[in-house]
Amino acid sequence: MTYCVGLLLNEGMVLLSDTRTNAGFDNIAIYKKMFTFEEPGERVVAILTAGSLSVTQTTIARLKEAIHDPDATEDSSILKAPTMLKVAEIIGNMLAQVRLDIDEKLSAMKQSASASMIVAGQRRGGEMRMFLIYPEGNFIEATEDTPFLQIGEHKYGKPILDRVVKPETSLADAQKAVLLSMDSTLRSNLSVGMPLDLAVIERDGCRIASRRRIEAGDENFRAMSEAWSRALREGFSQIRI
Amino acid sequence: MTYCVGLLLNEGMVLLSDTRTNAGFDNIAIYKKMFTFEEPGERVVAILTAGSLSVTQTTIARLKEAIHDPDATEDSSILKAPTMLKVAEIIGNMLAQVRLDIDEKLSAMKQSASASMIVAGQRRGGEMRMFLIYPEGNFIEATEDTPFLQIGEHKYGKPILDRVVKPETSLADAQKAVLLSMDSTLRSNLSVGMPLDLAVIERDGCRIASRRRIEAGDENFRAMSEAWSRALREGFSQIRI
Repeated sequence: MTYCVGLLLNEGMVLLSDTRTNAGFDNIAIYKKMFTFEEPGERVVAILTAGSLSVTQTTIARLKEAIHDPDATEDSSILKAPTMLKVAEIIGNMLAQVRLDIDEKLSAMKQSASASMIVAGQRRGGEMRMFLIYPEGNFIEATEDTPFLQIGEHKYGKPILDRVVKPETSLADAQKAVLLSMDSTLRSNLSVGMPLDLAVIERDGCRIASRRRIEAGDENFRAMSEAWSRALREGFSQIRI
Repeated sequence: MTYCVGLLLNEGMVLLSDTRTNAGFDNIAIYKKMFTFEEPGERVVAILTAGSLSVTQTTIARLKEAIHDPDATEDSSILKAPTMLKVAEIIGNMLAQVRLDIDEKLSAMKQSASASMIVAGQRRGGEMRMFLIYPEGNFIEATEDTPFLQIGEHKYGKPILDRVVKPETSLADAQKAVLLSMDSTLRSNLSVGMPLDLAVIERDGCRIASRRRIEAGDENFRAMSEAWSRALREGFSQIRI
């Protein structure tokens, strides 16, 4: 499984993904689930993926091919698309097509494959936008009322986001919130695993402002995780019922 | 949906269930999901239910019929069964039978019905035991390593339990833990709803030591929920990344 989360805030966007992929419990591997595309200052697109690796890898590979195709058009390349809505449509259509292709192959084995994605980005002159793309290719968008989107094992880490994330949350607090949301998920579900990929896109920057891989032994992450456990235990001990 | 949780601790057992039942999003009702059976001082059995209401109600109704049947035997009545393991077997068999009956009726509509249960109890001279009974009638048991069991929407409320519940947790802290676990679930998932039923069984008491219904407007629950939110926000604000 997977856990990916994206926040759409007044100051920018924060994205976090894990890297664990498993085929059964005995075949676990590390695969990147965050893909970024940019012409710095002009446009930036980040994609987070969850679901069948064969579907997500093929979708990303075809999106890259379309970008590098010398005949690429506004309708085929996510770096040529005139709006973020068009970017979401291109990715949604590609995902749906790949899923159908692979589903057809798998149907002989009575299996099926599925995947979903979070797409976040901005074009110069446009708004920052963030979409959750469903396996069928349709999508929903993050709004002021719901400034975060999650894919994969989303339930363990939702309570902390519900409580602390608002559009006016700072980018520093937002990174803390997604890391703590991931920390709760990592503790409660073995199928989500380190290392993590964390990226920040600042409003109107149209570039990846920072990108960081957090490895399994990361000292800062461990300290944050322990501080949070301590804060929860202290908070818990002070509550009266 | 539903959220029910049971803790098996050195001092006793704590059980909590919500009461929301829905057939679709537009048909929501309140149904009790906690059922207790006791001969105080001799034996106590508590059952928490999740899943299709037609399955759980019929199963509970038949278990009650078997208790009141003048010809009840050790193999049919959960208040005559010689051990808690036997109680779990009786309930598991009944649940599997009812589910099969109802599944057969529903198969004409290409639907299916399922349910699971938590069973907790003690017989005088025996140990406290707690089981999670699957729709097929098989079951697992809470142990020292995993002193809690959950059914229904269990993911939102698992992180807090993972962090604070141990066999040596006091009954007071245990009640706080299950209520906070429920609070996280209520906030993040509309299909789980107030009022709540909370019960405590003390070790070797072989009776329901306390049982409380917490209504939607309950002042103590609201205060606890707000104190927890405050503690989380304060903890959050103090963490450095």
